[in-house]
Amino acid sequence: VDVILDGSILSAAGFRAGAAGCGIKKVEGELDVALIVCDGPASGAGVFTTNSFAAAAVRWNRERLPADQIRAIAVNSGNANACTGERGERDVRRTAELVAELTGCAPDEVCVASTGIIGHPLPMDRLEAGLREAHSRLGAAEADARAAERAIMTTDTRPKAAAVRSAIDGVPFHVGGTAKGAGMIAPHMATMLAFVTTDVQVSAADLRTFLSEAAEDTLNRISVDGDSSTNDTAIVLASGRSGARVSADGPGAEEFRCALGAVMGSLALQIVRDGEGATKLIEVRVEGAADAESAHRVARAVAESQLFKCAAYGNDPNWGRIVCAIGYSGVPVQPENTTVHIGPVCVFRRGMPTGDDATGPMHEDTIPVGIDLGAGSGRATVHTCDLSEEYVQINAEYPT
Amino acid sequence: VDVILDGSILSAAGFRAGAAGCGIKKVEGELDVALIVCDGPASGAGVFTTNSFAAAAVRWNRERLPADQIRAIAVNSGNANACTGERGERDVRRTAELVAELTGCAPDEVCVASTGIIGHPLPMDRLEAGLREAHSRLGAAEADARAAERAIMTTDTRPKAAAVRSAIDGVPFHVGGTAKGAGMIAPHMATMLAFVTTDVQVSAADLRTFLSEAAEDTLNRISVDGDSSTNDTAIVLASGRSGARVSADGPGAEEFRCALGAVMGSLALQIVRDGEGATKLIEVRVEGAADAESAHRVARAVAESQLFKCAAYGNDPNWGRIVCAIGYSGVPVQPENTTVHIGPVCVFRRGMPTGDDATGPMHEDTIPVGIDLGAGSGRATVHTCDLSEEYVQINAEYPT
Repeated sequence: VDVILDGSILSAAGFRAGAAGCGIKKVEGELDVALIVCDGPASGAGVFTTNSFAAAAVRWNRERLPADQIRAIAVNSGNANACTGERGERDVRRTAELVAELTGCAPDEVCVASTGIIGHPLPMDRLEAGLREAHSRLGAAEADARAAERAIMTTDTRPKAAAVRSAIDGVPFHVGGTAKGAGMIAPHMATMLAFVTTDVQVSAADLRTFLSEAAEDTLNRISVDGDSSTNDTAIVLASGRSGARVSADGPGAEEFRCALGAVMGSLALQIVRDGEGATKLIEVRVEGAADAESAHRVARAVAESQLFKCAAYGNDPNWGRIVCAIGYSGVPVQPENTTVHIGPVCVFRRGMPTGDDATGPMHEDTIPVGIDLGAGSGRATVHTCDLSEEYVQINAEYPT
Repeated sequence: VDVILDGSILSAAGFRAGAAGCGIKKVEGELDVALIVCDGPASGAGVFTTNSFAAAAVRWNRERLPADQIRAIAVNSGNANACTGERGERDVRRTAELVAELTGCAPDEVCVASTGIIGHPLPMDRLEAGLREAHSRLGAAEADARAAERAIMTTDTRPKAAAVRSAIDGVPFHVGGTAKGAGMIAPHMATMLAFVTTDVQVSAADLRTFLSEAAEDTLNRISVDGDSSTNDTAIVLASGRSGARVSADGPGAEEFRCALGAVMGSLALQIVRDGEGATKLIEVRVEGAADAESAHRVARAVAESQLFKCAAYGNDPNWGRIVCAIGYSGVPVQPENTTVHIGPVCVFRRGMPTGDDATGPMHEDTIPVGIDLGAGSGRATVHTCDLSEEYVQINAEYPT
């Protein structure tokens, strides 16, 4: 797998992107509508939030994916179209119909995604104008990808993109993606939109399998604030244009799995790194658990400990908060078998403080926390960010 | 049940309290050791943290309570004596031995509690000096209670106390208590110490039953930050001095249950109101759940939503974050049956926004959030506080 510098959703053959600003975000000139279009029918798959109040667009996509004929993804930021009842449903349908008309396909071949404030109806006149404009600007240049990446942002401070090149039996293929994150980032999908394109040939059903596996190890292993949103969506489209063929258990599976995992893993880390108010990345790596599920629960408890996240922000090697979170994770733990590292420094060995100072590693840009439970071979890693005053400021002032 | 103004742990007959400052807290002159002593043998019961890394003092008490002969509780703040291995065990034993010697009882009749930083050994020379001094100051005046209340504080900004007077068959009795909270306040006991005294006559086993019930409805129904500590402890001592007799299912049970619930409920609210950085109390009241457990899970998800807590801090009626938290609570919920109030304002009715503005209630000192799931008769209330920049500052700068 080779990383493509400046790669994007347009690294794979067969896709175009366009963006427009139509005033949903209420900031003059800010992009808030994006279109990703495949030149021909693509196979498509998605994974979605488990929130009971799933947004209208999530329900629309869920009913249609996986599907062997998807042509476009329409995205708006600034309004989540969640908790908007029947009107929300109608607005999603209208969005799909308009994009279908513009693209020359059926409404069922259009996926829709929204992110932003909950509980407000979409301003459809603006959105429709935005979709038309975004369509008129569709292109395959790097600038087109960059515009789409910006258009899906909310409180993100920078656009997110990743792409890789690989090959199956000598036939090169590409996987590229973009995502937005920032707040409401938690288990079962970050509050997050992620769009991945590839030019492999793969059935929609198999694509769904690959996507679920990759999401489990990437997007479902991050946390910014423990809040799991109404709109979480990850969609992957495969144009088939590279000629490289992939099936779930057949040839090319391993190559595609690696490439997809690399792109989604990169996007997941970019989301955490750009968490609201985040100044650092925290990597919580648990091993020696009874099983993988226990390891994940322990890692998540530590990654979601407000107290440890504040300590990380303050460069404070307060390992007591790590141990405390392990202790309340709900997983049975033997203190005398438990060892904790912060970076290279062992701060807690088999139930006892070592007295060693981990101030150095706490000042790093990325803080690796290693936890060995000494109980088995289960392991899991969860990525999170620190908790700063800025997170509170952003979320106390977010306009409703 | 009559509330006693300026009541305390000394409102019940048979108790004395004393406090001292011995430098564990490292702030010149700040009180950090407290003793609560019963003039004769009291029955005692406790409930404790479920954290796997329970502190040495928690393990000491757990092995001894409930017990029909308890004479004293020794408390220090500034050091949790948690994750301190065998040395921590020895230090607890030494503490109990010294207090036993001073009080004229057996070490097994002494309860011990600690709160503060995790993973540092107790400075026993200082603690011993502090215990001796606190013992020399034992008294039953209001000032003695106030000193003990201050001595158990960590990041609390004010002491906490509550007391009530009631009667059983015309025989008056008292229940009084104190607590400390502030950070690491979460399910399964707030990070929190609570000490309650009463002058009813009750067996230790029955006292344990009353305490567990009361804790379930009070201390286990609050949250500041979702972190459940290594040291959570609630202990109640009954001197019997009032002559009022109580048994779990017999006479006086209802009166005592009410009185104990009133005191512990008041302490729980005082803890939340004084949560680290808190500017407001949030009361999340769920009804119409399939059962009480589901109601509790939904209430807790909302009460622990960082995003909603930030919105509360910012006076922002962002009900979308409430609905979102209901949706990811893990409890199956029908959006079309769900109704949400903020104060008196219905913001979401049967799955749809009402459009009504709840800015007014968000500016109040206490924000009541009412959630009706329309699915049954299960109900639960969880209290929490808002999340401010000050919480982050306190916890980024807490000294290790």
